[in-house]
Amino acid sequence: MYDLIIRNVNIATMVEGRAPYGAVLGGVIATLDGRLAYVGPADGFTGGDAREEIDADGHWALPGFTDCHTHIVYGGNRAREFEERLNGVSYEEIAKRGGGILSTVTATRDASEDELAASAAKRLARLKMEGVTTVEVKSGYGLTLDDELKMLRAARKAGEMADMDIHTTFLGAHALPPEYKGNPDGYIDLVCNEMIPAVAHEKLADCVDAFCEGIAFSPEQTTRVFEAAIKHGLRVKLHADQLSDLSGAALSAKFGGMSADHLEHTNEAGAKAMAEAGTVAVLLPGAFYVLKDTKKPPIDLFRKHGVTIALATDANPGSSPVLSLQLMLHMGCTFFGLTPEEALRAITIGGARALRLGDDRGTLEAGKRADILLFDITEPAELAYYVGGAFPVRIFTAGCD
Amino acid sequence: MYDLIIRNVNIATMVEGRAPYGAVLGGVIATLDGRLAYVGPADGFTGGDAREEIDADGHWALPGFTDCHTHIVYGGNRAREFEERLNGVSYEEIAKRGGGILSTVTATRDASEDELAASAAKRLARLKMEGVTTVEVKSGYGLTLDDELKMLRAARKAGEMADMDIHTTFLGAHALPPEYKGNPDGYIDLVCNEMIPAVAHEKLADCVDAFCEGIAFSPEQTTRVFEAAIKHGLRVKLHADQLSDLSGAALSAKFGGMSADHLEHTNEAGAKAMAEAGTVAVLLPGAFYVLKDTKKPPIDLFRKHGVTIALATDANPGSSPVLSLQLMLHMGCTFFGLTPEEALRAITIGGARALRLGDDRGTLEAGKRADILLFDITEPAELAYYVGGAFPVRIFTAGCD
Repeated sequence: MYDLIIRNVNIATMVEGRAPYGAVLGGVIATLDGRLAYVGPADGFTGGDAREEIDADGHWALPGFTDCHTHIVYGGNRAREFEERLNGVSYEEIAKRGGGILSTVTATRDASEDELAASAAKRLARLKMEGVTTVEVKSGYGLTLDDELKMLRAARKAGEMADMDIHTTFLGAHALPPEYKGNPDGYIDLVCNEMIPAVAHEKLADCVDAFCEGIAFSPEQTTRVFEAAIKHGLRVKLHADQLSDLSGAALSAKFGGMSADHLEHTNEAGAKAMAEAGTVAVLLPGAFYVLKDTKKPPIDLFRKHGVTIALATDANPGSSPVLSLQLMLHMGCTFFGLTPEEALRAITIGGARALRLGDDRGTLEAGKRADILLFDITEPAELAYYVGGAFPVRIFTAGCD
Repeated sequence: MYDLIIRNVNIATMVEGRAPYGAVLGGVIATLDGRLAYVGPADGFTGGDAREEIDADGHWALPGFTDCHTHIVYGGNRAREFEERLNGVSYEEIAKRGGGILSTVTATRDASEDELAASAAKRLARLKMEGVTTVEVKSGYGLTLDDELKMLRAARKAGEMADMDIHTTFLGAHALPPEYKGNPDGYIDLVCNEMIPAVAHEKLADCVDAFCEGIAFSPEQTTRVFEAAIKHGLRVKLHADQLSDLSGAALSAKFGGMSADHLEHTNEAGAKAMAEAGTVAVLLPGAFYVLKDTKKPPIDLFRKHGVTIALATDANPGSSPVLSLQLMLHMGCTFFGLTPEEALRAITIGGARALRLGDDRGTLEAGKRADILLFDITEPAELAYYVGGAFPVRIFTAGCD
């Protein structure tokens, strides 16, 4: 007795090495207890009863999408600042008024856990409309022990509200809080000696991230953060090489990083180190677009060395107020030259691997979590081709819709 | 007795000269017989009963959006071609295989009116999710008399299916059909002497458009098309100055054009002529993005001379497979430097004016059509700021939802 049988379905399993997109035409999917029990051709399915049977009428099934890099929990938003800049107010003037990331820090500190969860849940619901079922959410706008823990709790609560699977990341080393102005090492002490131990103790995050950049924290400060993380049993990842080449990709790989993210300026040594360490390249074309960047991440190096590529929204209130993961498919193709198949892999198995969930989801294979999207499309490339998204006609998370 | 009263609503009337966005905070909207009966502050509303009353709880109301330039009726799609190009197949090879616009012409000729209407209705439904209530749809992939008329009928049928208000444009002079290869003037004869009279006779289009460009039709050929249009009582508009400066904007204005569209290469004389003729500048950042264009339309000239600006999706299967008008807000700001208020005007009153519907809709004012969107946002700029769209919580078209 299965829970669900989907017949007459074209399946983009996204399993590598088979047909493009790992496609099975006119296949069958069966689920049991939230897992995939059968995925394959109709003639290999031995049959059986099910609580629900669907004739998919030739629609396409894909694995639920994973958005593996977001900052989707925050107080306020920066729509007014966006407007002021376009009305000609200078960056200096906006900074003088307390704008930029620090305005988000202030608004996030001022917000309660419930307020943060409620606003994030609305944005998560928008992602879910497109088929996103797994989301990584970072802290990093609280920048005090209490406010960082509040953000991580709000992220989990927002996930419950939106009925999505949330994986949290502690990003205390995101920006220097105003009270530590001129004393970044003092703040890194706080991150390493108080925040990371508390996050680990309360099991509020699966890993630790940092922003390694000229305008943020140095490789040395990042190294201290990573050492503290590993000491407390947490894995790491890194905002690396976005605006300049600080060998951030190699630094993440050196610590067995789950991913290195942005990577516009990553060099070949970095790509090689990532491949050897299994560190996933998380590309963020939304920030590239908003910041009018022109330097592209070295896709050819990632291909050459076999680095797994993921795409994510980077959903955040400043450099990437992006709430469409499908648009990242088109932008990944248009700006970075990914193929539609690479782009779709990057939000399915690529995104799952970036969160070390590749054995559990990201492809449609027997045994994996039954996160299934049904799309009324004629071929998978349509998902990258249309700008504005094709919304799934049905979404199953762990077998349920 | 009103049909509908919306209380406690922040109203972005988009009426010029009042507050930014023509905003009325905490106002009231009342409708009767599909028209706006009252729009304004609560204390100016004399009250009355209504069939339905809504407490909008501080949500924002905006006029229904107008997408004033689309090619949303077509056979097939070009997802496979998009994929081939990203897989490294050259433009020449794709053209040799019958790709590009001619593949869409073939697929459109092969499709029945009902098939065209059904596929277009799905795409229209996606636009409507964001609050688009009025859509212009062009022919131009049939390129025979029968196939052009079929497209125009399909456009109207698709509008009925999606419950949207459709305004059709005859674009026979879109591309040279293969059977007229080497004989563009012969094809223009067909457009002027057979197609335009038939379109006018059957009242299948509100106006006539042409693609004036080195790769399409010359200013002389365009002039012949415009003369034929006007002779048959139809107004004109033009795909102008997209890839080069052929003084297309001025040509549209000379014939009293409703709009000139694209305009990346328009010069100051063109902008002045447009202002004098009341020709609207329809900007299409989706095509700019997809084609990786770098030459921006001269926004400052349009501002200087007081040309009304509209933004549209250009929804088409090749250069702009865009199904999000709200994304055009963000791209209009990011690529072209529009302010969020200019961008929102460009898809409300600007789009309405481009279709000569400015007296009927495009702002929230008593007497106009009751196309009302309710958004759960804190300020109108959010609609331009978020990439991926804020979907209206309710949509009223002509007073009904």
